[in-house]
Amino acid sequence: MAVLLALSTLALAGQAFASFPDCATGPLANNTVCDTSATPIERATALISLFTFEEKVNNTGNTSPGVPRLGLPAYQWWQEGLHGVAESPGVIFAESGEYSYATSFPQPILMGAAFDDPLINRVATIVSTEARAFSNANRSGLDFWTPNINPFKDPRWGRGQETPGEDPFHLQSYVYNLITGLQGGLDPEYKRIVATCKHFAGYDLENWEGNVRYGFDALISIQDLSEFYTRSFQTCARDANVGAFMCSYNAVNGVPSCANSYLLQDILRDHWGWTNEDQWVTSDCDAIQNIYEPHYYAPTRELTVADAINAGTDLDCGTYYPAHLSAAYDEGLYNISTLDRALIRQYASLVKLGYFDPAENQPYRYIGWENVSTPEAQELAYTAAVEGITLLKNDGTLPLSPEIKTLALIGPWANATTQMQGNYYGQPPYLISPLMAAEALGYTVYYSPGPGVDDPTTSSFPAAFAAAEAADAIIYAGGIDTTVEAEGMDRYTLDWPGVQPDFIDQLSQFGKPLIVLQMGGGQIDDSCLTPNPGVNALIWGGYPGQSGGTALLDIIVGKAAPAGRLPITQYPIDYVYQIPMTDMALRPSATSPGRTYMWYTGTPVFPFGYGLHYTNFTSTLAQPSAATYDIATLVGGCAGVAHPDLCAFESFAVNVTNTGSTTTSDYVALLFLAGEHGPAPYPNKVLVAYDRLHAIAPGSSQTATLNLTLGSLARVDDYGNTVLYPGEYELQLDYDAQATASFTLTGEQAVLDYWPQP
Amino acid sequence: MAVLLALSTLALAGQAFASFPDCATGPLANNTVCDTSATPIERATALISLFTFEEKVNNTGNTSPGVPRLGLPAYQWWQEGLHGVAESPGVIFAESGEYSYATSFPQPILMGAAFDDPLINRVATIVSTEARAFSNANRSGLDFWTPNINPFKDPRWGRGQETPGEDPFHLQSYVYNLITGLQGGLDPEYKRIVATCKHFAGYDLENWEGNVRYGFDALISIQDLSEFYTRSFQTCARDANVGAFMCSYNAVNGVPSCANSYLLQDILRDHWGWTNEDQWVTSDCDAIQNIYEPHYYAPTRELTVADAINAGTDLDCGTYYPAHLSAAYDEGLYNISTLDRALIRQYASLVKLGYFDPAENQPYRYIGWENVSTPEAQELAYTAAVEGITLLKNDGTLPLSPEIKTLALIGPWANATTQMQGNYYGQPPYLISPLMAAEALGYTVYYSPGPGVDDPTTSSFPAAFAAAEAADAIIYAGGIDTTVEAEGMDRYTLDWPGVQPDFIDQLSQFGKPLIVLQMGGGQIDDSCLTPNPGVNALIWGGYPGQSGGTALLDIIVGKAAPAGRLPITQYPIDYVYQIPMTDMALRPSATSPGRTYMWYTGTPVFPFGYGLHYTNFTSTLAQPSAATYDIATLVGGCAGVAHPDLCAFESFAVNVTNTGSTTTSDYVALLFLAGEHGPAPYPNKVLVAYDRLHAIAPGSSQTATLNLTLGSLARVDDYGNTVLYPGEYELQLDYDAQATASFTLTGEQAVLDYWPQP
Repeated sequence: MAVLLALSTLALAGQAFASFPDCATGPLANNTVCDTSATPIERATALISLFTFEEKVNNTGNTSPGVPRLGLPAYQWWQEGLHGVAESPGVIFAESGEYSYATSFPQPILMGAAFDDPLINRVATIVSTEARAFSNANRSGLDFWTPNINPFKDPRWGRGQETPGEDPFHLQSYVYNLITGLQGGLDPEYKRIVATCKHFAGYDLENWEGNVRYGFDALISIQDLSEFYTRSFQTCARDANVGAFMCSYNAVNGVPSCANSYLLQDILRDHWGWTNEDQWVTSDCDAIQNIYEPHYYAPTRELTVADAINAGTDLDCGTYYPAHLSAAYDEGLYNISTLDRALIRQYASLVKLGYFDPAENQPYRYIGWENVSTPEAQELAYTAAVEGITLLKNDGTLPLSPEIKTLALIGPWANATTQMQGNYYGQPPYLISPLMAAEALGYTVYYSPGPGVDDPTTSSFPAAFAAAEAADAIIYAGGIDTTVEAEGMDRYTLDWPGVQPDFIDQLSQFGKPLIVLQMGGGQIDDSCLTPNPGVNALIWGGYPGQSGGTALLDIIVGKAAPAGRLPITQYPIDYVYQIPMTDMALRPSATSPGRTYMWYTGTPVFPFGYGLHYTNFTSTLAQPSAATYDIATLVGGCAGVAHPDLCAFESFAVNVTNTGSTTTSDYVALLFLAGEHGPAPYPNKVLVAYDRLHAIAPGSSQTATLNLTLGSLARVDDYGNTVLYPGEYELQLDYDAQATASFTLTGEQAVLDYWPQP
Repeated sequence: MAVLLALSTLALAGQAFASFPDCATGPLANNTVCDTSATPIERATALISLFTFEEKVNNTGNTSPGVPRLGLPAYQWWQEGLHGVAESPGVIFAESGEYSYATSFPQPILMGAAFDDPLINRVATIVSTEARAFSNANRSGLDFWTPNINPFKDPRWGRGQETPGEDPFHLQSYVYNLITGLQGGLDPEYKRIVATCKHFAGYDLENWEGNVRYGFDALISIQDLSEFYTRSFQTCARDANVGAFMCSYNAVNGVPSCANSYLLQDILRDHWGWTNEDQWVTSDCDAIQNIYEPHYYAPTRELTVADAINAGTDLDCGTYYPAHLSAAYDEGLYNISTLDRALIRQYASLVKLGYFDPAENQPYRYIGWENVSTPEAQELAYTAAVEGITLLKNDGTLPLSPEIKTLALIGPWANATTQMQGNYYGQPPYLISPLMAAEALGYTVYYSPGPGVDDPTTSSFPAAFAAAEAADAIIYAGGIDTTVEAEGMDRYTLDWPGVQPDFIDQLSQFGKPLIVLQMGGGQIDDSCLTPNPGVNALIWGGYPGQSGGTALLDIIVGKAAPAGRLPITQYPIDYVYQIPMTDMALRPSATSPGRTYMWYTGTPVFPFGYGLHYTNFTSTLAQPSAATYDIATLVGGCAGVAHPDLCAFESFAVNVTNTGSTTTSDYVALLFLAGEHGPAPYPNKVLVAYDRLHAIAPGSSQTATLNLTLGSLARVDDYGNTVLYPGEYELQLDYDAQATASFTLTGEQAVLDYWPQP
């Protein structure tokens, strides 16, 4: 006889998590937590003061049982929403009908390629609107563990697809617009939802040559930590007022991130001033257990939980806090005020979400199913895909001639549906594959899946070649997908996986137009395709989301014009043999060719920022107002500004003209800065501003205004300080420096930001 | 509109493969191939002579269309039967009822641990009987691509589970008994089925640090090639008369195995005399395409197929032969006689299977469903599991006290069903998990899956601990499974994966009897468990097949007695950091601790051959008939023997007494040879004989007769020659040398076998 044990702590069915407390008639009605005139910290403190010690400890894990005797509901802190409300412990999709789906936008790596900040803000606003709708239907909590804003430094990283790319400035700009969209502004009366910047810090390795994220110790110089690995997190904490942070699995310089007070206190809270009463840190899931094993950082389970809570990890996504905080307290390993502080932060955060407030005063509580998957949301999911899709090669075959009536649609992505969402997805309203989109356009389509992404076999070749033989033109949709790049799975090669190179080469010998779609988040080396004249066009499509097929086909046929730019470097295959994934250094050395477009000393297959159009553009870059600037004057002009790095320097107008005659097209203006200033070595260049211009008609012009700040000009020294240095500066427009402008900074160097020392 | 293309070469539905040709009234009736009085080569040659060139080329792939105009049916050459008739392109299980299942024996790694050759022969006979039943129902072809007989050299290898272990002699003895069981003897009138020894040669790496089997070049010394990597294949070819070989994905010393005439001609055919008209070589699946990419060995596809067929690869499991042999012939890259030879070999093989003969004269054609999953087969699947299961630690807790009435059965293997089969499995009649078996024994069972095998999270802990709390004793069933060791997936660590060590450690603190089942094929380092007195017993259970749960529980409760022995070394965790998987050398060096129990210089966690019992045994080893032997006399006594290495040396009696008072038990007698003779360095020892004694009752004795040959005494020199050397020899009984016997060889060294040089 098998026995099922009834365990009260396990009996929390999904629906039980998402109800709001009854502040009108429940046991808490007369407690200050239900008093809307009190401050959030007063309200949260009053609530926690009612908890017994055991009740406090019970509520330190992500699956929070609440306090039934107080009428405090169970609450699931873990919701996901990377590119739409997603499957996660706290989100419950209905089987059918209302709340059975939510909008599925492209993966961030493709939305990053759009280089369109207002787009990101609109996407985030829709995600948080739909999240509120689910919450109001008791189908979701209000805390979302997104975004993943670690820079996509190494092309092998399995989760790079979750990020907007490799450039810190790009990430900062993207995440600012994302978080204000998710949370509903910088300091709203009620937050729409609470976003969570993750994974803090230095997390960009899953499982590579036996180095596993749970036990990996990332050795990071203070310079790289300040300049590269934490820039986007600074924006989250200091500038965008994000509600939550997640500490990462890995250690940084010997200390697991969730036990790392240098990261969680000195940098995050003390230096960035992330000290609102409602701002809290969760561990990545079971990262606290990982402090014990496999980090082997703390010798007992009690010291493990004490290390984490003392360092400032407020919530355990896991069970170690609830299981071991009592014994740790008995051993005197932490103070009760530390536990109280953690709980107050979390419940103050719920106060700011209106969790304890009457629904009728809160606009977000009126959001319902009619606000989910609206026509605007559906259109935006399509637009986000179109804007990100990036044209890498075109011999004139694209847009496709209208004389082509039949298409061979071949490859593992040709009829991709779920796969178009990458990871962290929910239930979308629909998934339009390339095949479906081609059929919707009226083509006769010969479809053949061909070999799978990492398929080493040729058994699918004969059927696919027959399809190719039958059609006017061939679209091959392949590349990589989540079977080779995934959470927990890094890559070992940048080559096209499986037999795809052999297969595509044979497809290129049919003498028909061949368009190759390189799908997936990480880049793969296209140099096996680009010199082949039989490969007429090459498009990178990322993970394009629910309307991905439509976006791809509309670009192929010219209903939409491509203007995406690569948000990551496409390295040659050899790159992975030149630097181990575990090497965190950015700058080139005797053992490294350097990392990212800023430091890579080799020749990329396609550089960061690359992307072709269907028309031709000319662009001009306004010259600076002066040839020389005095540093003291610049800094002096920012007196009283809280963060001098954000103080304006100058705006540069970029005038862009569509010199073609037929195609209206977007254009992304990218402004880089190069030059010898600050500590050697000097980066190749750094991105300092960008803007996307929309729908420039043939023969017409538009102007992008690119705003530079003092931070745009600054470098980071060995100690992590952000410094303005005298020297030469050159602005470069676009990835290939179509236009340039130079100026000089003179005078003594000036520190814009003093970095805390470990 | 999506269009489905009707392709004649693709229209071969499964059922079409397995029908026999009509030699009575079909177009071939008057051809010599249907003349049972002609020789196989005459018959096959006559058949092929009717083929057009195009028909020949069409029939060079595993999915052979036959020749419809001749009434030659389509044939699928690819069946699998590693441990029972298995899912594969040529095997069609019925949805339900007859032919919906076949017996599923344990994985070879566990059957290897039985060290019971007659058992293997019985298992193989049942597999081939069931295969014939499926064939007679038009549900299977007659060619089975089994066994995998590469030695399990590196514990990381994902397919080591498919092999009997790491020792060459053990593999030789196992595979001889297996093949004669599968094929029905050494030279039967009709073969039961054709077995295929794979993967020739040097294949034991899937995907490790970017080294992928399809393109890996195994650099192997001639000494290691002769002594270690090909010994089992020599038995297949020279001694057991196996019908087919499979060349492997990897290259050996720069030449892809399927284009490697040194392997396929010089060694396999010329040296081992594997030249019967019906003996043929298939490529591993798409290994021929791999010669082109990713080996990049041949610069064109035409040279690729020519290299393979000229080297002696007769069949392409894949499509490159059918697709490119025509063009290669047009380029004059091979002779038509080479193509004919390949086809003649294959069809002569079918002749020997009775494929073209009247059914009524063939006993195997009468085998039907009543011969599948018989009570004998079911009993044998259980027995094979019991015999292999190996006891590694026992403080007296096992067999379990009858006072224990309730069990907590916890862990990812606790209710394992499909997983008990490992890989290459079919549809079994039933799968009895440990949980089912415990319930069948009448226990009240508290079941909790706990964390998954490679699960890093603790969310399952509370429920599992509640189960542990509720029971009298705890059985934890975990370890590894095919989610971490698999075809295409090697391991990076020998540690227990995921949170299992933390979890088991917490289970050990409940103060209750705790039995740990270490499941899976490759070993993991148990030293995190063995010193813990709270872990009372430890059992290795491999992949135990359809009755695996029953076998495990019967051993735990004492209904059966454990007597399995580890067929592989259990290395400490550090081992993987001491030698890269790509290093093929066996002998220790400055960069290697050595490989296998023969050469490993470290201390294993558990040594090769280790295994405990529920009773005590004493054993005695007979002394040699002489203290000194003259080499010339020994060799002279073997004059006229075809293979002097197989010529008898002496038999050694091992008398084994069960000195216990309660438990009847099997006992495996293992005889090793050590000593300073032949080229330095000297191996620690080598296994030279073994036998399993059955059911030795308390107080009684049995005798094993262990036969040594001249080959048992020989060493292999730098050139791969097998040589008898003067020097000291010591026989050691059992893994811990419970008894020893010494003798000396004198005189001049003598070569028993001259190895072909590359």
